[in-house]
Parts: sequence; C-alpha cells; structure tokens
Amino acid sequence: MPTGVRIDVSPEQIEALTYNLEGLIPAIAQDHETRDVLMMAWMNAESLRMTFDQGRMVYWSRSRQELWRKGDTSGDRQFVREAYFDCDADTLLFLVEQEGDGACHTGARSCFFRQFGTDAVETV
Amino acid sequence: MPTGVRIDVSPEQIEALTYNLEGLIPAIAQDHETRDVLMMAWMNAESLRMTFDQGRMVYWSRSRQELWRKGDTSGDRQFVREAYFDCDADTLLFLVEQEGDGACHTGARSCFFRQFGTDAVETV
Repeated sequence: MPTGVRIDVSPEQIEALTYNLEGLIPAIAQDHETRDVLMMAWMNAESLRMTFDQGRMVYWSRSRQELWRKGDTSGDRQFVREAYFDCDADTLLFLVEQEGDGACHTGARSCFFRQFGTDAVETV
Repeated sequence: MPTGVRIDVSPEQIEALTYNLEGLIPAIAQDHETRDVLMMAWMNAESLRMTFDQGRMVYWSRSRQELWRKGDTSGDRQFVREAYFDCDADTLLFLVEQEGDGACHTGARSCFFRQFGTDAVETV
C-alpha cells in the first residue's frame, strides 16, 4: 500500500516562496521510481501546507477555484516522497508515488503523453 | 560534442497551445540521461519556434523581457532530444542534453538543489 511522507516545513519557509499575482506556484510531480514527469499543476500556500502535512499532493484547481486533493475523486492519489524548490524559489518539484492508473484524467500514466514532431532531424 | 534535434512543428500546432495572459507557457527541462528535472522556465510562441528550429532551448526571460537562448552567455547550452505537451496543452516537457556544468546559474546541475524538510516522517 502506498505511503506518503509528512515533511516538517515552517510557515516562514512556505511564506518565503515566490507566488504569482494569483498567489500560486507551479508544482511538478515526478514519479520517484520511473522518474517520468507525471504532471505540472499549481499550489497556493494552503494546498502546499496540506501537502506537507498529509504527505499527499494537494493542488489548487484554477478551473474550479478550489483545493484539489489529487485522487479523492479518481482514486489515483499521489504520495509525497521528497520535495524540492528551485533557485528562484518560484517552482516546486515533488517526487511522488503515483497510485492507480496514472496522473492524467485521460487515463494516461503521465499527462505528457503527446510528443511533438515525427520527423526529428539531427542537427548540431 | 552535444547535438540537438530539430523538430518539425507546424505554426498551427504552436498556435494551438494554451498560453497565459502574458503569452507564455511553462517549459520543463529534464536531463534525457539522468532524468533529473533540471529547471522550469517560460517560453513564448517565438522562443518555442526557435527551440524547435535550432534544437536548442530558447526561453523567454520574464525578468529581462527578452529572448534567452540558454547557454549563449554561460556556455551551458541545452540541446533538445524530445519534446512533449500535456493533456491541457498548457505545459511543455523537453528531454535535453545539458552541456557544461549544469542548468542553474548558481553552478548547480539542477535548479532544484534545495530540499524541503529534514525530519520527514512516514505516514499513511
């Protein structure tokens, strides 16, 4: 059974991150085993706090304008293993254990299932 | 010597992506060998077109408000190997060959070199 990791992060650390004008920060979810990039979605400070507390990925749904605890509806939960932030402190990276079929609402394992180009040409 | 791949993408495909109000779309760069996520930055339609044409990552610098062909100053170029877009067509993923020291202006290989938490606790 999948498990998540609760991560102790101070409110100050969460506040110190750089959010956009809507109070959001992009969060990349990467499969901790296959290392496939599964999806990118957005968090606000509250969903980030919940993510750290619960060891499960909680996003902010921009389309529904509400907290979105991944998998509550679909069953395809994401359990947190490790969490990083970048040099500008404006993007997050989570290594996750993906439960169920996958991260994507289409049923695909990764949301990045469509590839550009079919006639790639080697260049220098 | 690193090489990039030129990818044939029609102007219609580039226009069909979803850009934000500033005309930008997030682009994740992942090392094609180590599969580490190196960085996330932004592209506009023009920089994306250049990226596909030249086989090198070209971003839009939000701070400088100009095209930013990664590595022209630092020497740490990123050569494109594969390119994907997600289910919502509002995020891009590139598998790249990272030249030189790394992707980060700090000298780190990945921009995500800082990890949250030191007292991670297993939970269910």
